[in-house]
Amino acid sequence: MQILLTVSYDGTNYAGWQRQENAVAVQQKVEEALSTLLNRQITVTAASRTDAGVHALGQRICFLAPDLRVPLDKLPMVLVGLLPSDISITAAEEVPEDFTPRFSPIHKTYEYNFYNNPYPNPLLARYSAFVPHKLNISEMQEAAKMFIGRHDFAAFCATGSSAKTTVREIFYCEISRQSDSIITLTITGNAFLYNMVRIIAGTILYVGMGKIKPGDIPGIIASRNRTRSGKTMPPQGLVLLEIKY
Amino acid sequence: MQILLTVSYDGTNYAGWQRQENAVAVQQKVEEALSTLLNRQITVTAASRTDAGVHALGQRICFLAPDLRVPLDKLPMVLVGLLPSDISITAAEEVPEDFTPRFSPIHKTYEYNFYNNPYPNPLLARYSAFVPHKLNISEMQEAAKMFIGRHDFAAFCATGSSAKTTVREIFYCEISRQSDSIITLTITGNAFLYNMVRIIAGTILYVGMGKIKPGDIPGIIASRNRTRSGKTMPPQGLVLLEIKY
Repeated sequence: MQILLTVSYDGTNYAGWQRQENAVAVQQKVEEALSTLLNRQITVTAASRTDAGVHALGQRICFLAPDLRVPLDKLPMVLVGLLPSDISITAAEEVPEDFTPRFSPIHKTYEYNFYNNPYPNPLLARYSAFVPHKLNISEMQEAAKMFIGRHDFAAFCATGSSAKTTVREIFYCEISRQSDSIITLTITGNAFLYNMVRIIAGTILYVGMGKIKPGDIPGIIASRNRTRSGKTMPPQGLVLLEIKY
Repeated sequence: MQILLTVSYDGTNYAGWQRQENAVAVQQKVEEALSTLLNRQITVTAASRTDAGVHALGQRICFLAPDLRVPLDKLPMVLVGLLPSDISITAAEEVPEDFTPRFSPIHKTYEYNFYNNPYPNPLLARYSAFVPHKLNISEMQEAAKMFIGRHDFAAFCATGSSAKTTVREIFYCEISRQSDSIITLTITGNAFLYNMVRIIAGTILYVGMGKIKPGDIPGIIASRNRTRSGKTMPPQGLVLLEIKY
Protein backbone atom coordinates (compact mmCIF):
# COMPACT_ATOMS: atom_id res chain seq x y z
CA MET A 1 0.00 0.00 0.00
CA GLN A 2 1.29 3.46 -0.92
CA ILE A 3 0.44 6.50 1.24
CA LEU A 4 0.25 10.11 -0.01
CA LEU A 5 0.83 12.74 2.70
CA THR A 6 0.26 16.51 2.55
CA VAL A 7 3.13 18.24 4.33
CA SER A 8 3.55 21.85 5.46
CA TYR A 9 6.75 23.42 6.77
CA ASP A 10 8.49 26.63 7.70
CA GLY A 11 11.62 26.30 5.57
CA THR A 12 13.66 28.93 7.47
CA ASN A 13 15.82 26.47 9.38
CA TYR A 14 16.22 23.85 6.65
CA ALA A 15 18.51 23.35 3.66
CA GLY A 16 15.42 22.79 1.51
CA TRP A 17 13.25 19.72 1.07
CA GLN A 18 15.83 17.28 -0.28
CA ARG A 19 18.18 15.28 1.95
CA GLN A 20 21.73 16.69 2.10
CA GLU A 21 25.07 15.40 3.33
CA ASN A 22 26.08 18.25 5.65
CA ALA A 23 22.85 20.07 6.43
CA VAL A 24 19.42 19.27 7.83
CA ALA A 25 16.66 19.01 5.20
CA VAL A 26 12.90 18.68 5.76
CA GLN A 27 12.98 15.24 4.06
CA GLN A 28 15.32 13.93 6.76
CA LYS A 29 12.99 15.02 9.58
CA VAL A 30 9.93 13.49 7.88
CA GLU A 31 11.76 10.23 7.11
CA GLU A 32 12.99 10.05 10.72
CA ALA A 33 9.41 10.41 12.01
CA LEU A 34 8.11 7.72 9.62
CA SER A 35 11.05 5.43 10.42
CA THR A 36 10.36 5.78 14.15
CA LEU A 37 6.67 4.99 13.61
CA LEU A 38 7.23 1.96 11.35
CA ASN A 39 10.41 0.77 13.07
CA ARG A 40 12.33 0.44 9.79
CA GLN A 41 14.13 2.79 7.38
CA ILE A 42 11.56 4.74 5.31
CA THR A 43 12.41 6.70 2.16
CA VAL A 44 9.88 9.13 0.72
CA THR A 45 9.50 10.72 -2.71
CA ALA A 46 8.21 14.28 -2.99
CA ALA A 47 6.29 16.29 -5.59
CA SER A 48 8.59 19.29 -5.36
CA ARG A 49 12.20 19.88 -4.28
CA THR A 50 11.76 23.21 -2.55
CA ASP A 51 14.97 25.22 -2.04
CA ALA A 52 16.60 26.25 1.22
CA GLY A 53 14.38 28.73 3.10
CA VAL A 54 11.28 28.11 0.94
CA HIS A 55 8.05 27.23 2.78
CA ALA A 56 5.26 24.79 1.99
CA LEU A 57 1.62 24.45 2.94
CA GLY A 58 0.84 21.77 0.35
CA GLN A 59 3.93 19.65 -0.34
CA ARG A 60 2.96 16.08 -1.29
CA ILE A 61 5.05 13.01 -0.53
CA CYS A 62 4.68 9.26 -0.94
CA PHE A 63 5.99 6.15 0.80
CA LEU A 64 5.24 2.44 0.64
CA ALA A 65 3.83 1.02 3.88
CA PRO A 66 2.20 -2.39 3.65
CA ASP A 67 2.91 -2.65 7.39
CA LEU A 68 1.14 0.56 8.50
CA ARG A 69 -1.08 -0.14 11.52
CA VAL A 70 -2.15 3.42 12.37
CA PRO A 71 -5.56 4.21 10.77
CA LEU A 72 -5.16 6.76 7.93
CA ASP A 73 -7.36 9.37 9.62
CA LYS A 74 -5.15 9.26 12.75
CA LEU A 75 -1.84 9.24 10.84
CA PRO A 76 -1.38 13.05 10.45
CA MET A 77 -1.66 13.80 14.19
CA VAL A 78 0.51 10.80 15.14
CA LEU A 79 3.24 12.11 12.82
CA VAL A 80 2.78 15.71 14.07
CA GLY A 81 3.59 14.30 17.50
CA LEU A 82 6.90 12.95 16.16
CA LEU A 83 7.87 16.09 14.19
CA PRO A 84 9.30 19.47 15.26
CA SER A 85 6.84 22.39 15.40
CA ASP A 86 8.05 23.81 12.06
CA ILE A 87 6.84 20.73 10.14
CA SER A 88 3.24 19.46 10.05
CA ILE A 89 1.21 16.78 8.26
CA THR A 90 -2.30 17.84 7.28
CA ALA A 91 -3.67 14.90 5.28
CA ALA A 92 -3.06 11.22 4.49
CA GLU A 93 -4.66 9.08 1.79
CA GLU A 94 -4.02 5.82 -0.01
CA VAL A 95 -2.90 5.97 -3.67
CA PRO A 96 -2.13 3.25 -6.27
CA GLU A 97 1.39 1.79 -6.06
CA ASP A 98 2.32 3.17 -9.51
CA PHE A 99 1.44 6.76 -8.47
CA THR A 100 4.44 9.14 -8.43
CA PRO A 101 3.99 12.47 -6.63
CA ARG A 102 6.54 14.25 -8.82
CA PHE A 103 5.36 13.16 -12.27
CA SER A 104 1.61 12.81 -11.73
CA PRO A 105 0.77 16.49 -10.81
CA ILE A 106 -1.55 18.40 -13.06
CA HIS A 107 -1.50 21.74 -11.15
CA LYS A 108 1.08 23.25 -8.83
CA THR A 109 0.36 26.57 -7.11
CA TYR A 110 2.97 28.82 -5.49
CA GLU A 111 2.57 32.11 -3.67
CA TYR A 112 5.22 34.84 -3.43
CA ASN A 113 4.73 37.51 -0.74
CA PHE A 114 6.12 41.05 -0.76
CA TYR A 115 6.01 43.19 2.38
CA ASN A 116 5.70 46.69 0.94
CA ASN A 117 6.20 49.24 3.70
CA PRO A 118 8.83 51.87 4.53
CA TYR A 119 9.94 49.80 7.58
CA PRO A 120 10.35 46.03 7.99
CA ASN A 121 7.85 43.97 10.02
CA PRO A 122 9.59 41.34 12.19
CA LEU A 123 6.42 39.20 12.31
CA LEU A 124 6.51 38.85 8.51
CA ALA A 125 10.30 38.79 7.98
CA ARG A 126 10.41 34.97 7.72
CA TYR A 127 7.54 34.83 5.22
CA SER A 128 7.96 37.75 2.82
CA ALA A 129 10.46 39.85 0.89
CA PHE A 130 10.76 43.36 2.34
CA VAL A 131 10.27 45.99 -0.40
CA PRO A 132 10.34 49.60 0.85
CA HIS A 133 9.96 51.16 -2.65
CA LYS A 134 6.66 52.65 -3.82
CA LEU A 135 5.06 50.14 -6.20
CA ASN A 136 2.62 50.51 -9.09
CA ILE A 137 0.26 47.63 -8.27
CA SER A 138 -1.98 47.94 -11.35
CA GLU A 139 1.06 47.67 -13.67
CA MET A 140 2.23 44.61 -11.67
CA GLN A 141 -1.24 43.08 -12.16
CA GLU A 142 -1.04 43.74 -15.90
CA ALA A 143 2.46 42.23 -16.06
CA ALA A 144 1.39 39.07 -14.19
CA LYS A 145 -1.19 38.21 -16.86
CA MET A 146 1.54 38.22 -19.57
CA PHE A 147 2.99 34.99 -18.13
CA ILE A 148 -0.22 32.98 -18.64
CA GLY A 149 -0.03 30.36 -21.42
CA ARG A 150 2.41 27.83 -22.82
CA HIS A 151 5.83 29.47 -23.26
CA ASP A 152 9.52 28.69 -23.40
CA PHE A 153 10.58 30.07 -20.00
CA ALA A 154 14.38 29.82 -20.55
CA ALA A 155 14.69 33.50 -19.55
CA PHE A 156 13.16 32.55 -16.16
CA CYS A 157 15.36 29.61 -15.26
CA ALA A 158 18.47 29.67 -13.06
CA THR A 159 21.63 28.43 -14.72
CA GLY A 160 22.63 24.92 -13.71
CA SER A 161 19.16 23.51 -14.33
CA SER A 162 19.07 20.03 -15.84
CA ALA A 163 15.58 20.35 -17.34
CA LYS A 164 15.29 18.72 -20.79
CA THR A 165 12.90 21.36 -22.05
CA THR A 166 12.27 24.88 -20.76
CA VAL A 167 8.68 24.94 -22.06
CA ARG A 168 6.09 25.17 -19.27
CA GLU A 169 2.42 26.10 -19.13
CA ILE A 170 1.07 28.73 -16.71
CA PHE A 171 -2.69 28.54 -16.05
CA TYR A 172 -3.08 31.37 -13.55
CA CYS A 173 -0.86 34.31 -12.57
CA GLU A 174 -2.24 37.16 -10.45
CA ILE A 175 -1.00 39.95 -8.21
CA SER A 176 -3.34 40.77 -5.30
CA ARG A 177 -3.20 43.11 -2.33
CA GLN A 178 -3.85 41.14 0.90
CA SER A 179 -3.66 44.22 3.12
CA ASP A 180 -2.16 47.73 3.09
CA SER A 181 1.34 46.30 3.07
CA ILE A 182 1.15 42.70 1.77
CA ILE A 183 1.22 42.09 -1.97
CA THR A 184 0.97 38.50 -3.17
CA LEU A 185 1.82 36.82 -6.47
CA THR A 186 -0.21 33.60 -6.94
CA ILE A 187 0.88 31.39 -9.83
CA THR A 188 -0.40 28.01 -11.03
CA GLY A 189 1.29 25.91 -13.69
CA ASN A 190 1.84 22.35 -14.85
CA ALA A 191 5.46 22.46 -13.64
CA PHE A 192 8.15 25.05 -12.87
CA LEU A 193 11.83 25.43 -13.81
CA TYR A 194 14.57 25.95 -11.21
CA ASN A 195 13.96 29.32 -9.47
CA MET A 196 11.24 30.15 -12.04
CA VAL A 197 8.68 31.59 -9.57
CA ARG A 198 11.34 33.67 -7.79
CA ILE A 199 12.58 35.11 -11.12
CA ILE A 200 9.02 35.84 -12.31
CA ALA A 201 8.39 37.56 -8.93
CA GLY A 202 11.56 39.63 -9.41
CA THR A 203 10.53 40.59 -12.95
CA ILE A 204 7.02 41.66 -11.84
CA LEU A 205 8.66 43.64 -9.01
CA TYR A 206 10.78 45.49 -11.61
CA VAL A 207 7.52 46.45 -13.35
CA GLY A 208 6.15 47.72 -10.01
CA MET A 209 9.29 49.82 -9.52
CA GLY A 210 9.03 51.24 -13.06
CA LYS A 211 12.27 49.65 -14.30
CA ILE A 212 10.40 47.85 -17.08
CA LYS A 213 6.86 48.01 -18.55
CA PRO A 214 4.18 45.25 -18.58
CA GLY A 215 4.42 45.32 -22.39
CA ASP A 216 8.12 44.33 -22.16
CA ILE A 217 7.28 40.89 -20.70
CA PRO A 218 6.42 39.08 -23.98
CA GLY A 219 9.75 40.24 -25.47
CA ILE A 220 11.68 39.08 -22.40
CA ILE A 221 10.00 35.66 -22.60
CA ALA A 222 10.75 35.44 -26.37
CA SER A 223 14.41 36.38 -25.80
CA ARG A 224 15.03 33.15 -23.80
CA ASN A 225 17.78 35.25 -22.18
CA ARG A 226 18.15 35.12 -18.37
CA THR A 227 19.92 38.50 -18.35
CA ARG A 228 16.73 40.21 -19.63
CA SER A 229 14.46 39.10 -16.75
CA GLY A 230 14.42 40.41 -13.16
CA LYS A 231 16.47 39.34 -10.18
CA THR A 232 15.87 36.09 -8.33
CA MET A 233 13.85 37.05 -5.24
CA PRO A 234 14.93 35.65 -1.86
CA PRO A 235 13.47 32.28 -0.75
CA GLN A 236 11.57 33.42 2.35
CA GLY A 237 8.76 35.02 0.27
CA LEU A 238 7.95 31.74 -1.49
CA VAL A 239 5.32 29.19 -0.38
CA LEU A 240 4.43 25.96 -2.21
CA LEU A 241 0.70 26.33 -1.67
CA GLU A 242 -1.04 23.42 -3.35
CA ILE A 243 -0.51 20.46 -5.66
CA LYS A 244 -3.55 19.01 -7.41
CA TYR A 245 -3.62 15.58 -9.04
CA MET B 1 15.69 66.22 23.86
CA GLN B 2 13.67 63.04 24.50
CA ILE B 3 12.87 60.64 21.63
CA LEU B 4 9.87 58.29 21.47
CA LEU B 5 10.34 55.24 19.23
CA THR B 6 7.77 52.72 18.01
CA VAL B 7 9.31 49.25 18.15
CA SER B 8 8.14 45.93 16.70
CA TYR B 9 9.63 42.52 17.43
CA ASP B 10 9.21 38.79 17.07
CA GLY B 11 9.55 37.75 20.71
CA THR B 12 10.23 34.05 19.99
CA ASN B 13 13.96 34.19 20.66
CA TYR B 14 13.93 36.68 23.54
CA ALA B 15 13.40 36.49 27.30
CA GLY B 16 10.82 39.28 26.98
CA TRP B 17 11.27 43.03 26.68
CA GLN B 18 13.09 43.72 29.94
CA ARG B 19 16.85 43.32 30.36
CA GLN B 20 17.86 40.12 32.19
CA GLU B 21 21.04 38.87 33.80
CA ASN B 22 21.37 35.50 32.07
CA ALA B 23 19.23 35.77 28.94
CA VAL B 24 18.93 38.03 25.92
CA ALA B 25 16.04 40.52 26.10
CA VAL B 26 14.75 42.83 23.36
CA GLN B 27 15.69 45.87 25.48
CA GLN B 28 19.35 44.82 25.41
CA LYS B 29 19.40 44.63 21.59
CA VAL B 30 17.71 48.02 21.21
CA GLU B 31 20.01 49.66 23.79
CA GLU B 32 23.05 48.16 22.04
CA ALA B 33 21.93 49.62 18.70
CA LEU B 34 21.33 53.08 20.25
CA SER B 35 24.61 52.93 22.18
CA THR B 36 26.49 52.10 18.95
CA LEU B 37 24.81 55.00 17.16
CA LEU B 38 25.41 57.59 19.90
CA ASN B 39 28.76 56.20 21.06
CA ARG B 40 27.76 56.17 24.72
CA GLN B 41 25.70 53.93 27.02
CA ILE B 42 21.98 54.46 26.36
CA THR B 43 19.19 53.25 28.67
CA VAL B 44 15.61 53.23 27.44
CA THR B 45 12.27 53.13 29.26
CA ALA B 46 9.38 51.20 27.71
CA ALA B 47 5.58 51.45 27.82
CA SER B 48 5.10 47.73 28.38
CA ARG B 49 7.21 44.89 29.80
CA THR B 50 6.16 42.13 27.41
CA ASP B 51 6.89 38.58 28.62
CA ALA B 52 9.19 36.00 27.06
CA GLY B 53 7.86 34.91 23.66
CA VAL B 54 5.32 37.74 23.35
CA HIS B 55 5.45 39.84 20.16
CA ALA B 56 5.01 43.56 19.54
CA LEU B 57 4.05 45.71 16.60
CA GLY B 58 3.56 48.89 18.62
CA GLN B 59 5.85 48.89 21.67
CA ARG B 60 6.86 52.46 22.64
CA ILE B 61 10.16 53.39 24.23
CA CYS B 62 11.92 56.61 25.23
CA PHE B 63 15.50 57.78 25.61
CA LEU B 64 17.21 61.13 26.19
CA ALA B 65 19.45 62.21 23.32
CA PRO B 66 20.51 65.86 23.30
CA ASP B 67 23.43 64.67 21.13
CA LEU B 68 21.39 62.95 18.37
CA ARG B 69 22.68 64.01 14.95
CA VAL B 70 20.62 61.69 12.74
CA PRO B 71 17.46 63.46 11.48
CA LEU B 72 14.33 62.00 13.12
CA ASP B 73 12.81 60.85 9.82
CA LYS B 74 15.96 58.83 9.02
CA LEU B 75 16.37 57.41 12.55
CA PRO B 76 14.10 54.31 12.18
CA MET B 77 15.95 52.96 9.11
CA VAL B 78 19.38 53.74 10.58
CA LEU B 79 18.44 51.73 13.70
CA VAL B 80 16.92 48.91 11.58
CA GLY B 81 20.35 48.64 9.99
CA LEU B 82 21.91 48.09 13.45
CA LEU B 83 19.26 45.61 14.69
CA PRO B 84 18.68 41.89 13.99
CA SER B 85 15.84 41.05 11.55
CA ASP B 86 13.46 40.10 14.37
CA ILE B 87 13.43 43.68 15.74
CA SER B 88 12.35 46.78 13.81
CA ILE B 89 11.78 50.49 14.45
CA THR B 90 8.81 51.97 12.60
CA ALA B 91 8.55 55.55 13.92
CA ALA B 92 10.51 58.21 15.80
CA GLU B 93 9.24 61.49 17.25
CA GLU B 94 10.31 64.09 19.80
CA VAL B 95 8.40 64.25 23.12
CA PRO B 96 8.68 66.55 26.17
CA GLU B 97 11.39 65.58 28.68
CA ASP B 98 8.80 64.84 31.40
CA PHE B 99 6.94 62.35 29.17
CA THR B 100 7.03 58.75 30.50
CA PRO B 101 6.02 56.00 28.06
CA ARG B 102 4.78 53.70 30.84
CA PHE B 103 2.63 56.11 32.82
CA SER B 104 1.35 58.43 30.08
CA PRO B 105 -0.62 55.86 27.94
CA ILE B 106 -4.32 56.32 27.56
CA HIS B 107 -5.01 53.23 25.38
CA LYS B 108 -3.13 49.96 25.01
CA THR B 109 -4.31 47.38 22.47
CA TYR B 110 -3.32 43.70 22.42
CA GLU B 111 -4.26 40.94 20.01
CA TYR B 112 -4.40 37.23 20.88
CA ASN B 113 -4.47 34.78 17.93
CA PHE B 114 -5.86 31.23 17.96
CA TYR B 115 -5.13 28.85 15.08
CA ASN B 116 -8.27 26.70 15.03
CA ASN B 117 -7.74 23.75 12.71
CA PRO B 118 -7.46 19.96 13.17
CA TYR B 119 -3.74 20.13 12.21
CA PRO B 120 -1.05 22.68 13.14
CA ASN B 121 0.23 25.21 10.57
CA PRO B 122 4.03 25.67 10.82
CA LEU B 123 3.81 29.15 9.22
CA LEU B 124 1.60 30.32 12.11
CA ALA B 125 3.16 28.30 14.96
CA ARG B 126 5.28 31.24 16.17
CA TYR B 127 2.34 33.67 16.15
CA SER B 128 -0.71 31.79 17.41
CA ALA B 129 -1.97 29.20 19.88
CA PHE B 130 -2.94 25.94 18.15
CA VAL B 131 -6.49 24.91 19.12
CA PRO B 132 -7.78 21.77 17.37
CA HIS B 133 -11.15 21.68 19.23
CA LYS B 134 -14.38 22.76 17.56
CA LEU B 135 -15.25 26.25 18.88
CA ASN B 136 -18.51 28.12 19.26
CA ILE B 137 -17.47 31.50 17.90
CA SER B 138 -20.72 33.36 18.58
CA GLU B 139 -20.58 32.38 22.27
CA MET B 140 -16.93 33.55 22.38
CA GLN B 141 -18.05 36.88 20.87
CA GLU B 142 -20.76 37.21 23.51
CA ALA B 143 -18.26 36.38 26.29
CA ALA B 144 -15.72 38.96 25.04
CA LYS B 145 -18.21 41.81 25.52
CA MET B 146 -18.62 40.90 29.22
CA PHE B 147 -15.09 42.17 29.94
CA ILE B 148 -15.82 45.73 28.75
CA GLY B 149 -15.98 48.34 31.52
CA ARG B 150 -14.22 49.23 34.76
CA HIS B 151 -13.79 46.08 36.87
CA ASP B 152 -11.61 44.57 39.54
CA PHE B 153 -9.71 42.01 37.45
CA ALA B 154 -8.06 40.14 40.37
CA ALA B 155 -9.42 36.86 38.90
CA PHE B 156 -7.43 37.60 35.72
CA CYS B 157 -4.06 38.37 37.26
CA ALA B 158 -1.15 35.94 37.66
CA THR B 159 0.05 35.45 41.22
CA GLY B 160 3.23 37.32 42.05
CA SER B 161 1.97 40.59 40.58
CA SER B 162 3.01 43.71 42.50
CA ALA B 163 0.12 45.88 41.24
CA LYS B 164 -1.27 48.20 43.94
CA THR B 165 -4.82 47.89 42.62
CA THR B 166 -6.35 45.22 40.40
CA VAL B 167 -8.97 47.60 39.00
CA ARG B 168 -8.58 48.22 35.27
CA GLU B 169 -10.81 49.61 32.53
CA ILE B 170 -11.45 47.76 29.26
CA PHE B 171 -12.74 49.93 26.40
CA TYR B 172 -12.96 47.33 23.64
CA CYS B 173 -12.97 43.52 23.63
CA GLU B 174 -13.94 41.59 20.49
CA ILE B 175 -13.53 38.13 18.98
CA SER B 176 -13.25 38.13 15.17
CA ARG B 177 -12.64 35.49 12.55
CA GLN B 178 -9.73 36.56 10.31
CA SER B 179 -9.99 33.51 8.04
CA ASP B 180 -11.34 29.94 8.14
CA SER B 181 -8.79 29.00 10.79
CA ILE B 182 -7.62 32.21 12.50
CA ILE B 183 -9.66 33.59 15.39
CA THR B 184 -8.46 36.82 17.01
CA LEU B 185 -9.19 38.47 20.34
CA THR B 186 -8.60 42.24 20.18
CA ILE B 187 -8.64 44.06 23.53
CA THR B 188 -8.07 47.71 24.42
CA GLY B 189 -7.74 49.04 27.94
CA ASN B 190 -6.13 51.76 30.04
CA ALA B 191 -3.64 49.22 31.49
CA PHE B 192 -3.36 45.48 32.04
CA LEU B 193 -2.39 43.27 34.98
CA TYR B 194 0.33 40.63 34.77
CA ASN B 195 -0.82 37.91 32.26
CA MET B 196 -4.29 39.52 32.13
CA VAL B 197 -4.78 39.28 28.35
CA ARG B 198 -3.55 35.68 28.26
CA ILE B 199 -5.94 34.69 31.10
CA ILE B 200 -8.88 36.51 29.45
CA ALA B 201 -8.00 34.69 26.18
CA GLY B 202 -7.97 31.36 28.05
CA THR B 203 -11.33 32.12 29.68
CA ILE B 204 -12.95 33.06 26.34
CA LEU B 205 -11.48 29.86 24.87
CA TYR B 206 -13.20 27.85 27.65
CA VAL B 207 -16.49 29.48 26.53
CA GLY B 208 -15.74 28.44 22.92
CA MET B 209 -15.13 24.86 24.07
CA GLY B 210 -18.38 24.81 26.08
CA LYS B 211 -16.68 24.48 29.48
CA ILE B 212 -18.34 27.67 30.73
CA LYS B 213 -21.11 29.99 29.44
CA PRO B 214 -20.82 33.70 28.45
CA GLY B 215 -23.21 34.45 31.32
CA ASP B 216 -20.68 32.99 33.79
CA ILE B 217 -18.13 35.77 33.09
CA PRO B 218 -19.61 38.51 35.35
CA GLY B 219 -19.63 36.05 38.27
CA ILE B 220 -16.02 35.04 37.60
CA ILE B 221 -14.96 38.71 37.52
CA ALA B 222 -16.91 39.41 40.77
CA SER B 223 -15.28 36.39 42.50
CA ARG B 224 -11.81 38.01 42.28
CA ASN B 225 -10.64 34.38 42.37
CA ARG B 226 -7.93 33.28 39.90
CA THR B 227 -9.02 29.63 40.17
CA ARG B 228 -12.42 30.50 38.60
CA SER B 229 -11.01 31.95 35.34
CA GLY B 230 -9.49 30.05 32.41
CA LYS B 231 -5.92 28.92 31.85
CA THR B 232 -3.10 31.32 30.96
CA MET B 233 -2.66 30.95 27.19
CA PRO B 234 0.89 30.55 25.82
CA PRO B 235 2.86 33.71 24.95
CA GLN B 236 3.26 33.13 21.19
CA GLY B 237 -0.37 34.07 20.44
CA LEU B 238 0.01 37.52 22.02
CA VAL B 239 0.93 40.73 20.17
CA LEU B 240 1.20 44.20 21.72
CA LEU B 241 -0.49 45.96 18.83
CA GLU B 242 -0.73 49.67 19.66
CA ILE B 243 -0.23 52.23 22.41
CA LYS B 244 -2.00 55.56 22.07
CA TYR B 245 -1.08 58.67 24.09
